[in-house]
Amino acid sequence: MINNWNQNEITLQVIKYLKEAKMNEFHVLLDELQPYDIAQIYEVLPAKHQNRFLSFLNTSQLADILQELDKEQQQKFLNKLGVEKALDVMDEMDNDDLANLLEELSPENKESFLASMKAEESQVIQNLMNYPPETAGRLMTDRFVWIPYHYSVRDVVDKLKEYAEIAETINYLYVIDDEKKLIGVVSYRDLILAEADEQIKNIMYERVISVTVDTDQEQAARMIERYDFLAVPVVDHNNVLVGIVTVDDMIDVVMKEAAEDIEKLSASGKNIDFDTKAPIAAFRRLPWLILLLFIGIVSGTIVSIFEETLEKVVALAFFMPMIAGMTGNTGTQSLAVVVRGLITKDINKKIVAKLIFRELSVGIMIGVICGLLISIIAFIWQGDAILGLVVGSTLVITLIIGTLAGTIIPLLLHKFKVDPAVASGPLITTLNDILSLFIYFGIATIFITRLM
Amino acid sequence: MINNWNQNEITLQVIKYLKEAKMNEFHVLLDELQPYDIAQIYEVLPAKHQNRFLSFLNTSQLADILQELDKEQQQKFLNKLGVEKALDVMDEMDNDDLANLLEELSPENKESFLASMKAEESQVIQNLMNYPPETAGRLMTDRFVWIPYHYSVRDVVDKLKEYAEIAETINYLYVIDDEKKLIGVVSYRDLILAEADEQIKNIMYERVISVTVDTDQEQAARMIERYDFLAVPVVDHNNVLVGIVTVDDMIDVVMKEAAEDIEKLSASGKNIDFDTKAPIAAFRRLPWLILLLFIGIVSGTIVSIFEETLEKVVALAFFMPMIAGMTGNTGTQSLAVVVRGLITKDINKKIVAKLIFRELSVGIMIGVICGLLISIIAFIWQGDAILGLVVGSTLVITLIIGTLAGTIIPLLLHKFKVDPAVASGPLITTLNDILSLFIYFGIATIFITRLM
Repeated sequence: MINNWNQNEITLQVIKYLKEAKMNEFHVLLDELQPYDIAQIYEVLPAKHQNRFLSFLNTSQLADILQELDKEQQQKFLNKLGVEKALDVMDEMDNDDLANLLEELSPENKESFLASMKAEESQVIQNLMNYPPETAGRLMTDRFVWIPYHYSVRDVVDKLKEYAEIAETINYLYVIDDEKKLIGVVSYRDLILAEADEQIKNIMYERVISVTVDTDQEQAARMIERYDFLAVPVVDHNNVLVGIVTVDDMIDVVMKEAAEDIEKLSASGKNIDFDTKAPIAAFRRLPWLILLLFIGIVSGTIVSIFEETLEKVVALAFFMPMIAGMTGNTGTQSLAVVVRGLITKDINKKIVAKLIFRELSVGIMIGVICGLLISIIAFIWQGDAILGLVVGSTLVITLIIGTLAGTIIPLLLHKFKVDPAVASGPLITTLNDILSLFIYFGIATIFITRLM
Repeated sequence: MINNWNQNEITLQVIKYLKEAKMNEFHVLLDELQPYDIAQIYEVLPAKHQNRFLSFLNTSQLADILQELDKEQQQKFLNKLGVEKALDVMDEMDNDDLANLLEELSPENKESFLASMKAEESQVIQNLMNYPPETAGRLMTDRFVWIPYHYSVRDVVDKLKEYAEIAETINYLYVIDDEKKLIGVVSYRDLILAEADEQIKNIMYERVISVTVDTDQEQAARMIERYDFLAVPVVDHNNVLVGIVTVDDMIDVVMKEAAEDIEKLSASGKNIDFDTKAPIAAFRRLPWLILLLFIGIVSGTIVSIFEETLEKVVALAFFMPMIAGMTGNTGTQSLAVVVRGLITKDINKKIVAKLIFRELSVGIMIGVICGLLISIIAFIWQGDAILGLVVGSTLVITLIIGTLAGTIIPLLLHKFKVDPAVASGPLITTLNDILSLFIYFGIATIFITRLM
């Protein structure tokens, strides 16, 4: 039976049915599959079978597949369907997914699709697209069940039967008053356990956790994570219930935000994955590298200022890579702690002060230990106690500064709502490079007569 | 009304009720709150009120709070309760959370708690703890609803009423055969829409997506993310249904894995957050820094090999920081792409070959552009065409090598199942440092007569 088949066997069977035009068997097979799996089959299908495959599917199945494809493939998919059928399919899609899809189209295409939709739906979609990206308003769906507060449990169950099929989750039923304001929530479980003629307003929770349309998506995700909810209601500024955001969208948010944090730390450029073409990947990384190249020239200029010192004691150059590297590394370590912390915590002045003090303490401990260690190594290696002292004391100072820079810079950027991508790891590393070389050669110049 | 109060106002009201020993009002208030919020109140409560607070709560509420606390506070909480009450509370906890809690206790405490539990429950918990960490087996809960295949829809609804309160999710009902093997799944929605005397086996999906007890938690999370499920059933190696993993646990997994990836890229040490004490944070970061310090000495040794070249042309030192920094940065960029890719993709030889070729192409493009740029800059700055040529050609070679190192090293570690934390950003940066200095001074030494 099909439940033991792997993806390849199923794909071959699909091709067989397509070739033999066995539409009924084809549908029996597809009914057992998840949208993600159907989309996977579509993607690996030889081009000659794809058109018949699409013609075999109904609009609801087409909508399911469309939502699973990535952006480039969605365009191709829509082109294959043609405008007429594409509109039918869009009609079946979740509003939030549809808004995202339209956002990616060329402006002319977007306008033409919106113009061809039913006026009512077009309005809903345009409303969604008016919310800023990455807010709860943009992610919410209107496929949820709401209940007037005066309903009885029996009324609710009847309404549920009607809407169960289109609702995205029926775990929570949101209770509204006459002005559509959110005033309560009932879980499906409460409903099962209640008597049929009990009034909803008597069994609902009144303290509803909700977000507003302009709540940041990260905040909404944190809320769902904290409370272990499957969905959170979204209200406008008058507390009128306008939608819900669901946990499956939030997992995507958490994954996307994690990828963004990794981008920040590595300055690896946006949206580069395994499938990105080489020229595009190179083009996206280059701006950072060229900026860092110029910052590297600044480091070079600092060394050139101390050319005289370096000419007299060439051995100073031996410790340059170690000092610059170590300072950069401590900075990155602190940066990572801050970036991770900002994901999961709401911060206030007290937390910031405590964190800066903690990192300062860490910097001092690390600095003193590494400084002592390198003094001894430098002395043994180069047989020069003064050189050991210069290298060691440099490391103490630069590790403390590096730790603080890695802590304070991202916090400042966060405070002033500057895109934190600017606080990327390589940037902090390079800034720490410059600083550490300056301190190193500065100290060395002071001791230059003793070093020679 | 309480639904408009903020957390502070609620906390003050709780303190008031505690002082006045108004237990009923206290419970009316708490019934409206989520476990996370109750735990927050407990944490900020002055120590003198905490004991009465705990004595006011019933075991189910205590269990809810315990699950929200972090590890250190869980210990204190259990101590406050005393063994007797702690056991009652543990009895109310989800098995997966309880297993995690016990894992953190000292071996003696763990044994004594396990010994005091009911034999049956103790067995369940010990079974859970036998699964390796980070597997579906460790995360699964046994609070789910299963249905024999011969039930009618009516039978199922009756069973549901009985179990709704303890089940963690009732969205999916898993159907088992006489040997308890998983043979189907019915959604709650299907149930609502079906006729009461319909047989379950006729409306169930037969192709159930499941994981086995030893499936990696990341894989289970990916599955839930892909299929937009709220839960996935867990089976043993005989396909016997033993538990479910739920989406709320998976959000935690995704967040934890993201934090681990950031740790990898920054070598910032495990488990350092805003609350970690300074000496502990320093202690966790030091091993990496000391390793990197010694690697930095290796860089220095390479420079010292070329001491003669450097003495003759001190200007070579001006470009050292830029070359080492740039090579390190390209390595980190590639590393980030690989680390991010490994989270979301299953990889095979074809994908790996394509990726390496892509990164090689990117390295060549980036290398040639940056190499040309720095040649011109070096020539203008130092007025020496040969120096420009040496610096430029070095950068071409090192950027290509840096890109490849950042791609191949993490892939190799992944293949040989070495803890990828070893492939941390700073390590690749430092290795690239060493390589780039060697290439730089190597090329410079070849051209030394022309440079003077």
